[in-house]
Amino acid sequence: MHALATDLYPLCRSITGDGLRESLRRLQKLVPLEICEVKSGTQVLDWTVPKEWNIRDAYVADAKGRRVIDFNQLNLHVLNYSVPIREKMPLAALRPHIFTLPDHPDWVPYRTSYYSEAWGFCAAQRVVDALPDGEYDVVIDSTLAPGSLSYGQLVIPGETRDEVLLSCHSCHPALANDNLSGMAVAVALAQQLAAQPRRRFTYRFLFIPGTIGSICWLASHEDVVPRIKHGLVLSCVGDAGGFNYKRSRRGDAPIDRAVAHVLRHMGVPHAITDFVPYGYDERQYCSPGFNLAVGCFMRTPNGKYPEYHTSADNLSLVKPDALEGSLAAVSAVLTVLEGDGCFRNLSPKGEPQLGKRGLYGATGGAAQLPGFEFALLWVLNFSDGSHSLLEIAEKAGMPFAQIRSAADALLAKGLLEAA
Amino acid sequence: MHALATDLYPLCRSITGDGLRESLRRLQKLVPLEICEVKSGTQVLDWTVPKEWNIRDAYVADAKGRRVIDFNQLNLHVLNYSVPIREKMPLAALRPHIFTLPDHPDWVPYRTSYYSEAWGFCAAQRVVDALPDGEYDVVIDSTLAPGSLSYGQLVIPGETRDEVLLSCHSCHPALANDNLSGMAVAVALAQQLAAQPRRRFTYRFLFIPGTIGSICWLASHEDVVPRIKHGLVLSCVGDAGGFNYKRSRRGDAPIDRAVAHVLRHMGVPHAITDFVPYGYDERQYCSPGFNLAVGCFMRTPNGKYPEYHTSADNLSLVKPDALEGSLAAVSAVLTVLEGDGCFRNLSPKGEPQLGKRGLYGATGGAAQLPGFEFALLWVLNFSDGSHSLLEIAEKAGMPFAQIRSAADALLAKGLLEAA
Amino acid sequence: MHALATDLYPLCRSITGDGLRESLRRLQKLVPLEICEVKSGTQVLDWTVPKEWNIRDAYVADAKGRRVIDFNQLNLHVLNYSVPIREKMPLAALRPHIFTLPDHPDWVPYRTSYYSEAWGFCAAQRVVDALPDGEYDVVIDSTLAPGSLSYGQLVIPGETRDEVLLSCHSCHPALANDNLSGMAVAVALAQQLAAQPRRRFTYRFLFIPGTIGSICWLASHEDVVPRIKHGLVLSCVGDAGGFNYKRSRRGDAPIDRAVAHVLRHMGVPHAITDFVPYGYDERQYCSPGFNLAVGCFMRTPNGKYPEYHTSADNLSLVKPDALEGSLAAVSAVLTVLEGDGCFRNLSPKGEPQLGKRGLYGATGGAAQLPGFEFALLWVLNFSDGSHSLLEIAEKAGMPFAQIRSAADALLAKGLLEAA
Repeated sequence: MHALATDLYPLCRSITGDGLRESLRRLQKLVPLEICEVKSGTQVLDWTVPKEWNIRDAYVADAKGRRVIDFNQLNLHVLNYSVPIREKMPLAALRPHIFTLPDHPDWVPYRTSYYSEAWGFCAAQRVVDALPDGEYDVVIDSTLAPGSLSYGQLVIPGETRDEVLLSCHSCHPALANDNLSGMAVAVALAQQLAAQPRRRFTYRFLFIPGTIGSICWLASHEDVVPRIKHGLVLSCVGDAGGFNYKRSRRGDAPIDRAVAHVLRHMGVPHAITDFVPYGYDERQYCSPGFNLAVGCFMRTPNGKYPEYHTSADNLSLVKPDALEGSLAAVSAVLTVLEGDGCFRNLSPKGEPQLGKRGLYGATGGAAQLPGFEFALLWVLNFSDGSHSLLEIAEKAGMPFAQIRSAADALLAKGLLEAA
Repeated sequence: MHALATDLYPLCRSITGDGLRESLRRLQKLVPLEICEVKSGTQVLDWTVPKEWNIRDAYVADAKGRRVIDFNQLNLHVLNYSVPIREKMPLAALRPHIFTLPDHPDWVPYRTSYYSEAWGFCAAQRVVDALPDGEYDVVIDSTLAPGSLSYGQLVIPGETRDEVLLSCHSCHPALANDNLSGMAVAVALAQQLAAQPRRRFTYRFLFIPGTIGSICWLASHEDVVPRIKHGLVLSCVGDAGGFNYKRSRRGDAPIDRAVAHVLRHMGVPHAITDFVPYGYDERQYCSPGFNLAVGCFMRTPNGKYPEYHTSADNLSLVKPDALEGSLAAVSAVLTVLEGDGCFRNLSPKGEPQLGKRGLYGATGGAAQLPGFEFALLWVLNFSDGSHSLLEIAEKAGMPFAQIRSAADALLAKGLLEAA
Repeated sequence: MHALATDLYPLCRSITGDGLRESLRRLQKLVPLEICEVKSGTQVLDWTVPKEWNIRDAYVADAKGRRVIDFNQLNLHVLNYSVPIREKMPLAALRPHIFTLPDHPDWVPYRTSYYSEAWGFCAAQRVVDALPDGEYDVVIDSTLAPGSLSYGQLVIPGETRDEVLLSCHSCHPALANDNLSGMAVAVALAQQLAAQPRRRFTYRFLFIPGTIGSICWLASHEDVVPRIKHGLVLSCVGDAGGFNYKRSRRGDAPIDRAVAHVLRHMGVPHAITDFVPYGYDERQYCSPGFNLAVGCFMRTPNGKYPEYHTSADNLSLVKPDALEGSLAAVSAVLTVLEGDGCFRNLSPKGEPQLGKRGLYGATGGAAQLPGFEFALLWVLNFSDGSHSLLEIAEKAGMPFAQIRSAADALLAKGLLEAA
């Protein structure tokens, strides 16, 4: 996963353009992604797909022709979606077009101007402070022209048409945790799922530019929307911090309970917070007209780490074992979703005699009941058609897998049926 | 407000009589109060309006004619509603008729006998202890005779017939916090409301004798009762203590939420407690046959400060800035009630594009979203017809005014409609 | 109660057989218990009544004929339900059939093998460790043959056919807290109830072998089941620990609230825990096909004290005053159940005038309202047909008896009616 992030890091992604398109093509080498194109000017919900932006070069050069700010060194140096410019101007005229971070004078900020035509540069405060007065060559060799918006979509079919949505924004240029980490974990997860012999759910992965990408997808897939039963936005999953899960707008959807259950039983540092209408594409999936059961799975959340949206969110911030841990956690969540369900105890009056079915120890009297037998009793007692196995696991304080294996044993003995 | 309390302090109010009537007349100089009279003997719900009580003088004088307990010095000295007496009697016969406060030997208690004919005096323990044996002149020059019960009513009409009730008991004689403070804040609030260019709600102020006054009003206004949507009883709002709000019997009525919201965002010491069927006239408004959404707004509650119902609840206990603070808090609560409502996002699928409407900053990427933009997103996401603006403010952890101004901006852009 | 436990302690009870039968006969001397017999082989729900087990003697004797493990000394020494054996065998062959407690080398464990034919002994680890190699006489003089399962049932009729179930398992041999204590408290409670002049509920006491006994009773009393409104399983109620109440599966049934209320107002150490599908016969009563409002009342719960299911759970672990305290607590719970109900305030608009009915003090103004008057106000305000007296007591923070006596006073004055 870290190698994939490293491969993608130098490409200058944006919400449209060849950087994004090339990134998706590289993902196609790993998973059979479909690349979809939506023409500039297309009406999508309340939005219009913008012109396509492409950039070849951008720099500020001093009187001696030395590039003092250079897009080729770091693609964050250009205000993303800058219109072209090629002018000589004094520092005083240039200066208002340069974004810096006074509190982090060595870091280059990430700034965008997608929906308002502007040009600009982003640079380290220390570099800008050192610029002598004088004339500068200001060059942004970009184009903003009708074209299309690209996004990637991968559908891994399952036994049912009910879907699990996994979405990650793929529009950020040289930012590693936000969100090359999310893209890398999503690809690894897709590979894992595709390798499984069976899947109950159909899995849909989206690699999309933030906001406008999910708007485009929602606008063109309203038929799919009702089939999405669970979903996660993956972002910032590569740093060394603990897990942070932001609940779906519904607040107690099965996805919300499944993530909470998995993180609790993993015994790792984590926090779970309520939905707020700001963040990543869950904003769109959870807008009131859709209100999908989609939460946002992160390590350190957007805006909560100093390197966020700066050049310091680079490949060294993303740790291979943090990526692995994120993959393991999300994978465990999907295992819960796959295995969850409501069952009905077919012998609901009194306990069925488990001993005669080989499910209960022969010798009685010990102070502790073995965990498996206790799990059987939990499943039998609460399988009344209204408690899911996940809810039973929560009541029992047991990991889901233990409750699921008890349910399997009871199913095998004809003591349980799907409700 | 403190001047009004000072003006009213010397009058000997009771649940009927000229002291109460004169107090209401003095309020009429400030607000266009209607004074209503209910004849003695009138059946009001389960009660009967009592005879009217008036008093001219009352004293205990020693053998030398010196007044050792004198109503003219402090009107608490007479048991409120005492029947007339004019007798000579030894101290031993008089003593059982004198109420004192052994724990506060310099304070005079406040005692009443509205519904059982009795006579008595209230005096400082120290004074009573110093009385030598001997004969005393015992004089209460009062009358208890058919007449009427007076209360004040002020209706400030609004755009709708839905009403907000503000009620304060006005029957206590020389007690300043309980409840001249409530009367003073109510008058100031009425002046403020009348001066506003528009009001959504109709406001009804009641200045009534405790218990029997609200019973009288409820008995004769059953047609108005269903229109009362919110209400507050105002009492003990002048001392230096923090705010105490006692919820309506409903417990989570909009008034209960509005007061809690305002007090939290004012950042002042406060406590919020559940309804109990004892206290002030909320007992009547919240009786199960009416169950109005009326809470009780106080600073230090009845019975919880040592000066309560004693001569020490005097004008020095009431602080001008405490009255101002109470007025500001209640006024802020009414602002919330006026501005609250449920709206519907007219672009509920995905976020509407706020930038093209001038509601969103052009440059993206900063770690923090400005508060106003965040408020817009909160209103849009939860304006699904079932969340009020106050509920959205609570979810967002933002002051109501910020959410309301976001809603106004969205209304102006046609993105929202009343639900 | 302790004397009864002492009387029963030496009998070798099991889930069937003469030890159980004789125990029930001894209870018949104290209360008019009916002893019911269910034939071996009878199908009861998912179970089959097992063969009847009886035992006359059991021992392990060494080469010199000395009994090194002797059932006559302590009936726990035999694996309960052992099939007969009479063999000579070397220690190595015998050893796997002896259960010990390595952590408590002087205690004899309690083990059973009801549903799997086996033979065995239970002994102190220290005794077993001291056995020299050699041949041993291994004798269990038991029979396992068609017969019947016995249980005791006592019905004390009340004014209604609605029932309160009190159930205690009576199958454990020489174990005093678990559950001679439960049997003793149940007998004392039955005597108390029978002596009362009237009872609203019909009380049904069951003295049954664990699991199979409640299964038998449920299988043959499905007509009674719907009439059971409240119930308690009584177990481990004689040790010196605080009370532990395990809620019914419903979690907030009146019995759950009544026990919580009583224990809180008794001011004794106690804990209340949610239902779990393991423990005593509440497992059967609370199985999803019955889901009765039956909780489990204990002092130290099963498995939570070291002496549990060992020879150390003997008569010295059970304290007479602990039995008395348990009886008092359960009796108080039944008093709440008997007295609870929903009423309707017949003067719901405003407070009724209590003074004219002699229910309210004549002199007003004191800072504290007397508790009885406050209780009247609580009952009046919340008697709207949907709050029970117990719920009102909980809201008021008052003991149930105070609320009930207020309700009685209001009923006597015609201010309340049953809802």
